[in-house]
Amino acid sequence: MSETHPLVLFMPSGRRGRFARGTPLIEAARSLGVHVESVCGGRGICGRCQVEVAEGVFAKHGITSAADHLSAWSAKEERYAEKRGLKPGRRLSCSASVEGDLVVDLPSDMAINGAVVRKAVDTREIPRDPAIRLLYVEVSQPDMHAPLGDLDRVFEALQRDWRLPRPTIEPSLLPKVQGILRAGNWGVTAVVAHDREADRPHLVALYPGLKNEAYGIAVDIGSTTIALHLSSLLSGATIASAGTPNPQIRFGEDLMSRVSYVMMNPEGRPQMTAAVRGAIRELTTRVCTEANVSPDDVFDAVFVGNPVMHHLFLGIDPTELGQAPFALAASGAIEMPAAALDLGLHPHARAYVLPCIAGHVGADAAAATLSEGPHRQDETMLLVDVGTNAEIVLGSSRRLVAASSPTGPAFEGAEISSGQRAAPGAIERVRIDPETLEPRFKVIGVEPWSNEPGFVEGAARFGVTGICGSGIIEVVAEMFLAGIISEDGVIDGRLAARSPRIVEEGRTFAYVLHETPDRSIRILQTDVRAIQLAKAALYAGIKLLVDRLSAEEGRPVAIDRIALAGAFGSFIEPRYAMVLGLVPDCALERCGSVGNAAGAGARMALLNREFRREIEDVVTRIEKVETALEPAFQGHFVAAMAFPNKRDSYPELVKVQPLPNRDAAGNPTLSGGEAGSGGSDEGGSARRRGGRAGRR
Amino acid sequence: MSETHPLVLFMPSGRRGRFARGTPLIEAARSLGVHVESVCGGRGICGRCQVEVAEGVFAKHGITSAADHLSAWSAKEERYAEKRGLKPGRRLSCSASVEGDLVVDLPSDMAINGAVVRKAVDTREIPRDPAIRLLYVEVSQPDMHAPLGDLDRVFEALQRDWRLPRPTIEPSLLPKVQGILRAGNWGVTAVVAHDREADRPHLVALYPGLKNEAYGIAVDIGSTTIALHLSSLLSGATIASAGTPNPQIRFGEDLMSRVSYVMMNPEGRPQMTAAVRGAIRELTTRVCTEANVSPDDVFDAVFVGNPVMHHLFLGIDPTELGQAPFALAASGAIEMPAAALDLGLHPHARAYVLPCIAGHVGADAAAATLSEGPHRQDETMLLVDVGTNAEIVLGSSRRLVAASSPTGPAFEGAEISSGQRAAPGAIERVRIDPETLEPRFKVIGVEPWSNEPGFVEGAARFGVTGICGSGIIEVVAEMFLAGIISEDGVIDGRLAARSPRIVEEGRTFAYVLHETPDRSIRILQTDVRAIQLAKAALYAGIKLLVDRLSAEEGRPVAIDRIALAGAFGSFIEPRYAMVLGLVPDCALERCGSVGNAAGAGARMALLNREFRREIEDVVTRIEKVETALEPAFQGHFVAAMAFPNKRDSYPELVKVQPLPNRDAAGNPTLSGGEAGSGGSDEGGSARRRGGRAGRR
Repeated sequence: MSETHPLVLFMPSGRRGRFARGTPLIEAARSLGVHVESVCGGRGICGRCQVEVAEGVFAKHGITSAADHLSAWSAKEERYAEKRGLKPGRRLSCSASVEGDLVVDLPSDMAINGAVVRKAVDTREIPRDPAIRLLYVEVSQPDMHAPLGDLDRVFEALQRDWRLPRPTIEPSLLPKVQGILRAGNWGVTAVVAHDREADRPHLVALYPGLKNEAYGIAVDIGSTTIALHLSSLLSGATIASAGTPNPQIRFGEDLMSRVSYVMMNPEGRPQMTAAVRGAIRELTTRVCTEANVSPDDVFDAVFVGNPVMHHLFLGIDPTELGQAPFALAASGAIEMPAAALDLGLHPHARAYVLPCIAGHVGADAAAATLSEGPHRQDETMLLVDVGTNAEIVLGSSRRLVAASSPTGPAFEGAEISSGQRAAPGAIERVRIDPETLEPRFKVIGVEPWSNEPGFVEGAARFGVTGICGSGIIEVVAEMFLAGIISEDGVIDGRLAARSPRIVEEGRTFAYVLHETPDRSIRILQTDVRAIQLAKAALYAGIKLLVDRLSAEEGRPVAIDRIALAGAFGSFIEPRYAMVLGLVPDCALERCGSVGNAAGAGARMALLNREFRREIEDVVTRIEKVETALEPAFQGHFVAAMAFPNKRDSYPELVKVQPLPNRDAAGNPTLSGGEAGSGGSDEGGSARRRGGRAGRR
Repeated sequence: MSETHPLVLFMPSGRRGRFARGTPLIEAARSLGVHVESVCGGRGICGRCQVEVAEGVFAKHGITSAADHLSAWSAKEERYAEKRGLKPGRRLSCSASVEGDLVVDLPSDMAINGAVVRKAVDTREIPRDPAIRLLYVEVSQPDMHAPLGDLDRVFEALQRDWRLPRPTIEPSLLPKVQGILRAGNWGVTAVVAHDREADRPHLVALYPGLKNEAYGIAVDIGSTTIALHLSSLLSGATIASAGTPNPQIRFGEDLMSRVSYVMMNPEGRPQMTAAVRGAIRELTTRVCTEANVSPDDVFDAVFVGNPVMHHLFLGIDPTELGQAPFALAASGAIEMPAAALDLGLHPHARAYVLPCIAGHVGADAAAATLSEGPHRQDETMLLVDVGTNAEIVLGSSRRLVAASSPTGPAFEGAEISSGQRAAPGAIERVRIDPETLEPRFKVIGVEPWSNEPGFVEGAARFGVTGICGSGIIEVVAEMFLAGIISEDGVIDGRLAARSPRIVEEGRTFAYVLHETPDRSIRILQTDVRAIQLAKAALYAGIKLLVDRLSAEEGRPVAIDRIALAGAFGSFIEPRYAMVLGLVPDCALERCGSVGNAAGAGARMALLNREFRREIEDVVTRIEKVETALEPAFQGHFVAAMAFPNKRDSYPELVKVQPLPNRDAAGNPTLSGGEAGSGGSDEGGSARRRGGRAGRR
């Protein structure tokens, strides 16, 4: 069997199978569902189907793989290598056939036609099956005996060589088909949009001869930042990325102020729509210039964003999203010609907008879900993306629930007395010595910590101007761990006796983080309250989802993994998020940032149409919980005002980070009470240990 | 059985079935495949499903039908009748149910919303199943617990009430959906394009409340004339029609001169495209004004035309059609947004162009085929549409063949010495007394014949200016029947001795049809030759098809019916067409004009998408014969130069129209020879009898 049917393993997918000797490698791959691109249909001219044989003994797989387990170089490969160049070790899988056991790599770094291929934005390999395909065909010449039209013979060839059903055609192409066919001497490359397998494909463009590149953009439209990635639809490589502040900011800092602007100004909606589209157009120009790609070669575009961004981008009035019942104008995925969005791509490029989950849980949360895949896992994942609204998805392959929670802008440094955006000069990290209550901190743009040599010189450049989102989280958490604030968030005025850092500020106390003659950066009692309100809202939303999921599953649900998405996820340290009780207890190593999950999900949908179907399906199955309507919200909210929480235990957290008010099992040791009272000694000692452990 | 399951017969389709008492009439109709329109989905508000009970004893069907065999008037009907009015005898089939045997008429004269409904252009009933549908739905209101978007709830309602799969949406509608839903208080009418059942439908427009009218245009783009019909897509009635000369005439009278114009002038193609589209736009405005319809309510458009017209209309260079291999740029049916054609319809209207059969057999011939339906019959039909090119289709349900033949413009009066277009002053009919050789004729615009009282006064208005297409056919046929010209088309100079009508003209002779001091209308020997060449080309083309069909069927094919389509068919008298040998022998009563069959086919495709599928399928099965490539063409052509034909017999014709050179079985009596020689006496006497018989 193995003599006549060697074993072939494809990497990185790991799919494997046995094939008769002589099976073309590309056929072997396809029969296993491994997508190997080919524009020329096996004619050995596009070079898209390149593979590399991994040589050696792969004991784990029981394979001894060698380059000569592929058939000898074919004339097609010789010709291609001579004309276009082929890296050592590379073969064309359309021309090489299986002759022995093989481990085959599908490389993602193919440089074809001199296009710039940069390091991928994301190291994740996305299996490719894009909605836009380039299909080269050789079309039969006109024949009086079989008077099929030029276009119809193109369709016939597409059917014959690519099994493509008869497509519809872009009307403006009709007059051009004759000339293109003759210019290509009857060899043409069709650009075909075929998003849904069951739909008829659509002929988007037609080029004489072999066209060997097509690109797409994946865009994450955030309220603050728009991020755009340019990917090759043929190699899957992301070849350029860029971001820009969302120019809608001039109409309102946060979502609700933009919605208000539209309500107040009839011209506001079209202005904001034009602003976001203009920004995307500029980003596209920028990435295309950088990658030396013509925007005319961008044939597909995928968009994600929260519901307000989604609506404004599509030109839809977001006013309904500002009030109950928070009615989305459109929740399902939207396919359309990109021309309607005026982005300067190929005139007949396509656009795809991911579905929204609910009135406040948008296409960005859907994309993050697609990227992190709680629905593909048995373990229960909590996926949190915090902006002005927190979008929360919880569940597993069994069941998913989602909600949004109005956290407000405190986590972004807004509504905080010394708060500011993350920019040079902002304090981003803080440590407080539990003995001395003295802080040290790190400022954006300055390498050394505040207690290290070189800090003063470094900080002189921008000054120390305020405290950003991650800074406020860390300082409040450190204040709690150092016993400066109680479980209930009260700054303990009694410590003013012990340290000059604790000062009276009206009827409450404050903590002086940094003081210079012209500026005092202090954490006020109101700042702590703002963080409490924000985190209580987030936690209460999560808690409602845990309740709902537990009810549905008929058992208390434990969270196996916490994925913190977006900017929030990347700046916040999971330990501090848990110390403050932003998120429930979970093994610390299973809680972490997943980067720009929304952007990653958008890229997945760009590169593989099956991911579009997947998220469309998942979204319909996600159960939505409207936090505003849940009677239990208030109780969860009140309990979550405490650090980390009045009621819930943190057994996993206390294993690595003892808490002032918790026993070794993570259960509350006190029913609250005043700061510093009761078991504060044990708490203090636990806190010191934890403080050290946590700082490694 | 009949007690509990009464028999219901629907007219005009004749479909019948038994239904349980209480079955809503509309359901009974639909289960039989009888399309009963309904916009409101059985809510009794659109009135589109009106029916009439035919009362009486229908012995043939075994049905005694009475109005009270329907359920009593419902509240819905009362309300509709009160609000909108319902003609006596009319019922709403959504509200009335079967209670006894019934004969039910589906009336086509529904006046709804005061729209003007005129007499149908064509009395033929076209079963309706249009590609554009109006679907009224009541959409659920936004619900925080089930946060589906507005648009998605429209789709949900379309799925629920109409079983419509999720459609794609016109992008410019996206921002409007919110407002439309709220303006309609959650009741909206969706305009859905759903041409192919297997394709996803497309949401073209959305209206608040009940929208109860949608129209379409069917356009036959002839080289000479453009004809347009405006039909209600809901009732099927054609409510206005108009025609206009094709403005491309200024670029060239006939097809090939227009193709030449494009070859010579780079701007010629866009100019001619703009001209034809402009003319259609104007016609649309004209019919809409006449029918009091807004062009914004025109949602569908169907186009037919010969290949050159087809290409120029679509903006395609027709140059390739001017030379072998006569390559069509596109032969298959084309669906597109009508906006690409700039016709001033609803901005998101759809357009459908019927398929072409071959390089010279266009979408007009396809439409004529669809209309006359040779493929739906067991008998063999010859379908001929003569213009500058004759388009010929021959066959039956078993097999179809098609060809074009270059007849040139002689049949239209061009290339004839006194020829002119059919216009007032043109001689259109001619009779020649075989004894005296004196003619009498009829002139367009003048009621009496030339030998009748009042002719001189009538003709004084325009004069007698020339002879048009039908006139030239008739005068040559009458000259042949009167013995003035021989079987070979030679004007017999010897008759100059007998009649002053025969005069010498250079080295040949001419027949003086009409003479005044300032004008002499004569039939020259060259005119007869021009007709001979044209008719020989037509006949040879037909003959090739008969040969091909006979070979394929393995037996000599007899033509059971001849359908003469278009202007040619309506002006030519079948008897004369046969006397001159334009068409093969056939029972005279089975040969006749079918009117504007291409226009009728276009209307069928407009009103029923199944007819689109039918003709798309038929076209792929029609075998094309390229006359220019067939070696047998020349022989057929030479034989067909004779009147009626050198070789072929005319047994059916001679039964009613004896011929100078044929025996009673229609076989040639002479091997040609000179005119007037040999058996001319028998021929003469036969001719006299025939002349009389034919003139009744």
